[in-house]
Amino acid sequence: MSSEKILIIGGGPAGLEAARSIADLGGDAVLVEKRERLGGTPDSEGYAKLTHHWLDASEVLGKLAAAVTSGKGVDVKTKSEVKKISGSAGSFKVEIDASGKAESLEVGAVVVATGFQHFDPGRATQYYNYYSFPDVITLTDLEKMLKENKVVRPSDGQTPKKIAFIQCVGSRDRQVGNEYCSKVCCGVASKQAVELREQISDSKVFIFYIDMRMYGYWEPQIYWQAQEKYNVNYVKGVISEVLQKGNQLLIRGEDTTMSRPMEVTMDLVVLSVGMEPSAGTRSVAQLLGVQQNKYGFIEAGGATGIDPVGTSQAGIFVAGAASGPSDLDDSFAQGGLAAARALASVRRVIA
Amino acid sequence: MSSEKILIIGGGPAGLEAARSIADLGGDAVLVEKRERLGGTPDSEGYAKLTHHWLDASEVLGKLAAAVTSGKGVDVKTKSEVKKISGSAGSFKVEIDASGKAESLEVGAVVVATGFQHFDPGRATQYYNYYSFPDVITLTDLEKMLKENKVVRPSDGQTPKKIAFIQCVGSRDRQVGNEYCSKVCCGVASKQAVELREQISDSKVFIFYIDMRMYGYWEPQIYWQAQEKYNVNYVKGVISEVLQKGNQLLIRGEDTTMSRPMEVTMDLVVLSVGMEPSAGTRSVAQLLGVQQNKYGFIEAGGATGIDPVGTSQAGIFVAGAASGPSDLDDSFAQGGLAAARALASVRRVIA
Repeated sequence: MSSEKILIIGGGPAGLEAARSIADLGGDAVLVEKRERLGGTPDSEGYAKLTHHWLDASEVLGKLAAAVTSGKGVDVKTKSEVKKISGSAGSFKVEIDASGKAESLEVGAVVVATGFQHFDPGRATQYYNYYSFPDVITLTDLEKMLKENKVVRPSDGQTPKKIAFIQCVGSRDRQVGNEYCSKVCCGVASKQAVELREQISDSKVFIFYIDMRMYGYWEPQIYWQAQEKYNVNYVKGVISEVLQKGNQLLIRGEDTTMSRPMEVTMDLVVLSVGMEPSAGTRSVAQLLGVQQNKYGFIEAGGATGIDPVGTSQAGIFVAGAASGPSDLDDSFAQGGLAAARALASVRRVIA
Repeated sequence: MSSEKILIIGGGPAGLEAARSIADLGGDAVLVEKRERLGGTPDSEGYAKLTHHWLDASEVLGKLAAAVTSGKGVDVKTKSEVKKISGSAGSFKVEIDASGKAESLEVGAVVVATGFQHFDPGRATQYYNYYSFPDVITLTDLEKMLKENKVVRPSDGQTPKKIAFIQCVGSRDRQVGNEYCSKVCCGVASKQAVELREQISDSKVFIFYIDMRMYGYWEPQIYWQAQEKYNVNYVKGVISEVLQKGNQLLIRGEDTTMSRPMEVTMDLVVLSVGMEPSAGTRSVAQLLGVQQNKYGFIEAGGATGIDPVGTSQAGIFVAGAASGPSDLDDSFAQGGLAAARALASVRRVIA
C-alpha cells in the first residue's frame, strides 16, 4: 500500500515552511515535534530579533506556526517522537511516541527538519573558561537577556560596559572536529552588538574575528550599520585565553592587523558558538538510514549531487540546518523545495 | 478569467528548478528565456566546475534543462522576451516576443528568475586597468580558459606562472554603489585558484582579500584544500592599483596583516567581479511593477518581510540572483519554494 501522506520531522523554520507549503498545495502532512511548542531553536532559545530581518523572532515564528496549526492539511503532533521507521519511498511505516501514546502510520515520503544545536563551549575550548567564570557567556545566553532588555553580568547583576565577542568558537576548528564555518555567527554577533549598543548606550562593544562573513545584504544591513551608526569595534585577532582579573575578565591573544599581542579587560565575554547537528538530527539520521557527513549532519545532494534537499535515500528529503549550517532564508527556501519534491514523489508513486 | 498557468521568466538554475518543480507537481508552466539556450549564466559564461560541488557545470545544467524540455508541463520558449504584462494575481495578461512572433497568454502567477550580471570592472575601478592591460582579466574570462584547459596571458599567449586574484571588485564598495557582498566570489576565486594549480603545476597563485567569506562547507571543501593541498597564498590586503612593468603587471597596495605597503609583479591579474542585477532583472521588475531595492535587485520579503521569494506584488515571486547575490544552492532552493508558492496561489484562486 502506498501513501500520499508526508511525514515532517521537526517544527522549526524549515519544517514549518515545508508543512505550510504541502498544505497550501493540497497535500496531507503529519508534523512530529519533540517539544511542546513549535518554532524550533529560535523559539526554544528565546531569540530576540532575527538576523538579518530585524523582525521579532517570536512574532514571525508564531505566525508561521499558527498558519500551520490552524490551516487544513497538517496534523501537528507536539511532544512526539519518531521511534521506528521501515519501508521505502512511497510506503514507509512509522512508529511514533505521540505524547506518551504509541501510534503507527503510513507515509509516502519524509522531510527531515531536525535542525542544529549550539556548540558547547565547555567541551573542548576550556581555555575560554565558560564553565568557570560566570561572566563568560554564549550568544544564546546573551540573546535571552537582550530579549528581556536586561543585560547584566551574571556574577554581580551589574550592567556590563565593556563587552567582547569571540568569534568561531567551535567552528573552523580542526581540533574540536568542526572544520566548517557555521555561517550565521558573524551576523548574529553583529546584530547582538547593535542591540547591546541600543540597550546600553555607554557600552563599548568589541568583536574579535578571523573573517567577518557578512555575505550578501548582511554587509550593508548589519555590518556597516554596526560600525558606522553603532561604533562597534571589529578587531581581526585570535583570542587564546580568558582569565579572571579582579572582578573583570582578561582576554589574551593576538591582534593580527596590528601584528602584536593583545591583553584587554572586559566586563562580559560572549562566545560566538557555532552549529552542530542536534541530537534529533543524529538519531533520526540513524533511524532512517540516511548518510551523514563526517560532522554528523545529514548529507545533502541526492542522486544528482547538487540537490540541496536530496538525501542518500529516495523519498527522504532534508531541509534547513539538519544538513549543515543554514541561515533563516536557507531554511525557509529549503523547506519549500523539500515540500515540492516530497509531494511530487508521493504523487508520482500513486499515479 | 483566471488561469492556473504559471509564467517563469528566465531559464537559469532558479528558473529551471522552478519549472521542474511545477511540472513535477502537475502544474502548467511557460518558461520564457531570452537566449537560444537554457542554463543561465553558468551556461552563457562557460563555467567550468561548479562552486562548491566541483561538478561539471555544463553537465549539471544540461541535465536539468533536459528534464525541463523533455518532460510534460513546461512550454519552453527560447529567444523570447516578455514585452508587456497587465492584470493581477490569478489573471495576468502577458505579451511575448517569441522568436520574433508576437504571442499573448494568460497566466495566474509569475516567477521571476532573471538573475544577475557580472560587474563591469572598467566602469568605476579603472585603477585596475581592465580595459588598458590585456593581462588584467575577470573571473569570467578565466573561467572560460579553465574550461578549455588552456590558461594563457592574452597579451602574448604565454602560460602565466604568477597569478593574483583581487577580491571585492565591484562589491562592498560604496563608491561604485554596490555596498553588498556578492557572496560567491571568495568561493569562485578559490575554486579557480585550485584549478589553476592543477592545470599549471609550477604556478604561484595569490588571493588578495578583505575577508574570505567561505561560509558553511566551503571552508573545509574549498578553502582548506586550496591552502593545504594546493598551496594557494591568501594575503589579507587592499590593492590600490595595477600598473604595467615591462611585460609584467605590478600590483600595489597594502598587506594589512603585515601592516606594510606591498608591490609585487604578476603575470596575470584576475579581478573577482561581483554580481549586479542583470538587464533582464531591471527591465522585468519595471514591467511587472515590483519593488526594487536601491541596487536594482528585486526586493524579496513579501507581505511578511521574511519570505525569500515574495515580492511587493501578490502572485509575483522571485527566485535566485534576481533578488540579490545567491549561490547555486540558494537558486535551486528558492526555485522550489517559488514553485510551491506560485502553484498554491493559482490553485487557491481557482478553488
